[in-house]
Amino acid sequence: MEKFELTILGCGSAKPTLRHNPSSQILNVRDKLFMIDCGEGTQLQLCHNGLTFTRLNHVFISHLHGDHWFGLPGLISTMNLYNRTAELHIHSPHGLEEMMKPIMDYCNYDMSYQVFFHEFDTLEPTRIFEDRTLTVTTIPLKHRVPCCGFLFREKEGLRHIRREMIDAYEIPIAYINNIKAGADFVLPDGEVISNERLTTPPSKVHSYAYCSDTVFRPQIAEQVRGVDLLYHEATYAAEDDNRAVKHFHSTTVQAAEIARLAEVGKLVIGHFSARYTNDQQLLDEAKAVFPNTVLANENLRVTIDD
Amino acid sequence: MEKFELTILGCGSAKPTLRHNPSSQILNVRDKLFMIDCGEGTQLQLCHNGLTFTRLNHVFISHLHGDHWFGLPGLISTMNLYNRTAELHIHSPHGLEEMMKPIMDYCNYDMSYQVFFHEFDTLEPTRIFEDRTLTVTTIPLKHRVPCCGFLFREKEGLRHIRREMIDAYEIPIAYINNIKAGADFVLPDGEVISNERLTTPPSKVHSYAYCSDTVFRPQIAEQVRGVDLLYHEATYAAEDDNRAVKHFHSTTVQAAEIARLAEVGKLVIGHFSARYTNDQQLLDEAKAVFPNTVLANENLRVTIDD
Repeated sequence: MEKFELTILGCGSAKPTLRHNPSSQILNVRDKLFMIDCGEGTQLQLCHNGLTFTRLNHVFISHLHGDHWFGLPGLISTMNLYNRTAELHIHSPHGLEEMMKPIMDYCNYDMSYQVFFHEFDTLEPTRIFEDRTLTVTTIPLKHRVPCCGFLFREKEGLRHIRREMIDAYEIPIAYINNIKAGADFVLPDGEVISNERLTTPPSKVHSYAYCSDTVFRPQIAEQVRGVDLLYHEATYAAEDDNRAVKHFHSTTVQAAEIARLAEVGKLVIGHFSARYTNDQQLLDEAKAVFPNTVLANENLRVTIDD
Repeated sequence: MEKFELTILGCGSAKPTLRHNPSSQILNVRDKLFMIDCGEGTQLQLCHNGLTFTRLNHVFISHLHGDHWFGLPGLISTMNLYNRTAELHIHSPHGLEEMMKPIMDYCNYDMSYQVFFHEFDTLEPTRIFEDRTLTVTTIPLKHRVPCCGFLFREKEGLRHIRREMIDAYEIPIAYINNIKAGADFVLPDGEVISNERLTTPPSKVHSYAYCSDTVFRPQIAEQVRGVDLLYHEATYAAEDDNRAVKHFHSTTVQAAEIARLAEVGKLVIGHFSARYTNDQQLLDEAKAVFPNTVLANENLRVTIDD
């Protein structure tokens, strides 16, 4: 099984509490770590969860409110203290590089590695990252400032070789990649061995969607339809829906409604307002609409199995 | 007794650990809070210690390394979320305002209060703050970047009225301030009542010196002579004195030597390197030179009694 695991580093909202840290998460895809948002204190939460800084090369920032990025200066500095050499890539809506510039200029005289900022518009879904196994696409959200979520989707992988069949037919190694890609094999006597006999299907691909911060926006459901895991902010309880509208946030019930509409596998709710001291009420409200809901909590790990 | 109490919010050094937070302290002088340094996570530590943001109007930053100020953006933002109206004054070596400017510009469109930056040179002792009861003077330190400590010294107060004597002589209220300041009182019949009979001595004044980060610098002892309480960084154990010199820090023994030379009342050591997991060794080394030493630790409170 390929690893596809979400770790919550912080799931509070902007006002600090002793119960929750500000927003940050790590998505572990086959032991590559992708950070989503980076509120103050995130670097300590990484340490606390035994997550290795060196496996982290990409950080995705949803919007420029401080509770989603004020942990970046410390994270960048600490990586330098550990003499990092690998590039760090920071993906965000427009404006972050300008805000970080004087800090980067102050540090740059003795930086051991390079930091690259990649900025984008948030109005249309945009593919902002791609590697051999994964794509990341923005999810337009509606908040007080330009804001987007992120849809992480694994690429369809290659088929798996059935070693015993390759051995039996003495298939040369040069043909293996084509067979993984779906090709049949023709024996010297002309017999065609179908690909289905030589391989098993590719591993299941996984998908994760992060949606914070936003008002209720049904279009989100269209874009995240069928994802294995959805994190949707639920800053407010259902009874506080007026506050949600006023502050461009969602309620528990609205988060669950997105999950229901999108028929996702599992919903994680978070970004809880400091006004609630009993998270169980929030969970109950969401579960009434979408039963397979869990509460985000610091250090919670959610693994997507095959 | 007037309150004069130090609370340690963080006493680690730059590399994050799960044992210590980066540098920050609160000096409580008669229920006015003065913050010294503001590493990442400081606002949460304030909450954790039940210290009220509204009593904090002045922040003193020793130097511009991130572990001493990366908590400022979050603190400033949170005060805004709580609709603060009082001015916040930030005192630091030159350069902080420029680094904070883009963040302040981003926030300023909806700030409920004003932030003022006051910047200074660190080469000479300079009085950078004064109110009715207290002065704050910089202590030149030697670090990789411009850096200073801070000497907090209460002003000599007024004498205390002996209420029963005032009543006995029927002294009008208009004379009270003069008597507090030391004046005698002349009765209608010409008899002089000496001030000593009308008052008791002023409260003892207290003093606190904060010295971090710095190499061993004996001149510090001259400036902080006789303070009630000295915090001096002790980043390294005595055996690592070469590292201390290389990184412009001090050892336990050097911190204690400053305390001994300056004949201070009590020494608190802190800013411990992440390399040590046993702080007791650090304490033992310092106590061998200056017995009245305590280890800084998160949430430690040190009260200076009369």
